[in-house]
Amino acid sequence: MRTTKTRSLLVRSPRRGLHLITGEVSALVRELGGEEGLCTVFLRHTSASLLINENADPDVQRDLEDFLDRIVPRGDPSYRHTAEGPDDMPSHIKMALTQVSISIPIVEGRLALGTWQGIYLWEHRDHPSSREILVTVV
Amino acid sequence: MRTTKTRSLLVRSPRRGLHLITGEVSALVRELGGEEGLCTVFLRHTSASLLINENADPDVQRDLEDFLDRIVPRGDPSYRHTAEGPDDMPSHIKMALTQVSISIPIVEGRLALGTWQGIYLWEHRDHPSSREILVTVV
Amino acid sequence: MRTTKTRSLLVRSPRRGLHLITGEVSALVRELGGEEGLCTVFLRHTSASLLINENADPDVQRDLEDFLDRIVPRGDPSYRHTAEGPDDMPSHIKMALTQVSISIPIVEGRLALGTWQGIYLWEHRDHPSSREILVTVV
Repeated sequence: MRTTKTRSLLVRSPRRGLHLITGEVSALVRELGGEEGLCTVFLRHTSASLLINENADPDVQRDLEDFLDRIVPRGDPSYRHTAEGPDDMPSHIKMALTQVSISIPIVEGRLALGTWQGIYLWEHRDHPSSREILVTVV
Repeated sequence: MRTTKTRSLLVRSPRRGLHLITGEVSALVRELGGEEGLCTVFLRHTSASLLINENADPDVQRDLEDFLDRIVPRGDPSYRHTAEGPDDMPSHIKMALTQVSISIPIVEGRLALGTWQGIYLWEHRDHPSSREILVTVV
Repeated sequence: MRTTKTRSLLVRSPRRGLHLITGEVSALVRELGGEEGLCTVFLRHTSASLLINENADPDVQRDLEDFLDRIVPRGDPSYRHTAEGPDDMPSHIKMALTQVSISIPIVEGRLALGTWQGIYLWEHRDHPSSREILVTVV
């Protein structure tokens, strides 16, 4: 009997930057069961992102963070939306340029990620509260 | 009995910028039914995008639009594809940097969006015709 | 009886740039069968991307490539991750700005792409090896 199930994953007050969540997502996929399927990861926020990228050299994560800071500068005088702090509007733009949902095939009961791929929560705020991610298995 | 169903949503000649479509997508999800599932929103065009972003302060939408105009300037002399007007090649680039499909979990019969999240059609052309969006519920 | 199935698509040593894969993905969708459904295309790598964009004027593909080269310059002295060559860190950034998975509705047994839409593998490395793409039909 095929069913679609969603579970919630809470990342408690992550600091700015990339946070590897491959392990937590994989654990939920095992818990939800199923041999062949599709796993969709969805972030319920507007100033953070989801990302799949290299999970080998930590320098890649710092270079990604620096790049996004460079093309989306904080304190740009043209921003109108400034009431929530200088890191807020840049966070919304960074989110628009990256992902809010990513779908990954499940093959033989496991996420079919490539050898170097990791799933990340990308926190864009300086002092965020906790972030909720939904993991749906079809 | 589980089924996958797709419905079409037509947005008539939107002007440039962000158009909130959360209400229309939610209505189709209710119509297609199901308590637990996955909703995929897909845009059938190449010079507009889909976006999930903040749905509170309208200034966020204007700042997003300004940002994308700044990093993807119209009239760049290096563009080869210019026959369809100065807003056409920038539209294809803006589309490449944003989303053409977004998947959102359905929990207890409703889209499991976060508190501040809205779903937008992001029109990049100056004088577009109507845009067709497909909403699929699994 | 509804089932979810995944097949692998191998693109052998693509040169840098955009490679149209609509035909190969469509063929796998026909092979996997089903009248109504959802097709998810997933790339198992971290220095290439998936993209849906215009499939008419080849100049669009060259302009997209040039744009991404301009905003993600190679040889930026701020990059820390340089051991794998000057095209490697830019490839990871380009991947972060584009897509790793795209979901497309299946209607009447066919991918419901818009008239001008093509599905592309976007290779960012100078000398890549083969790339594996997973096609999942729900």
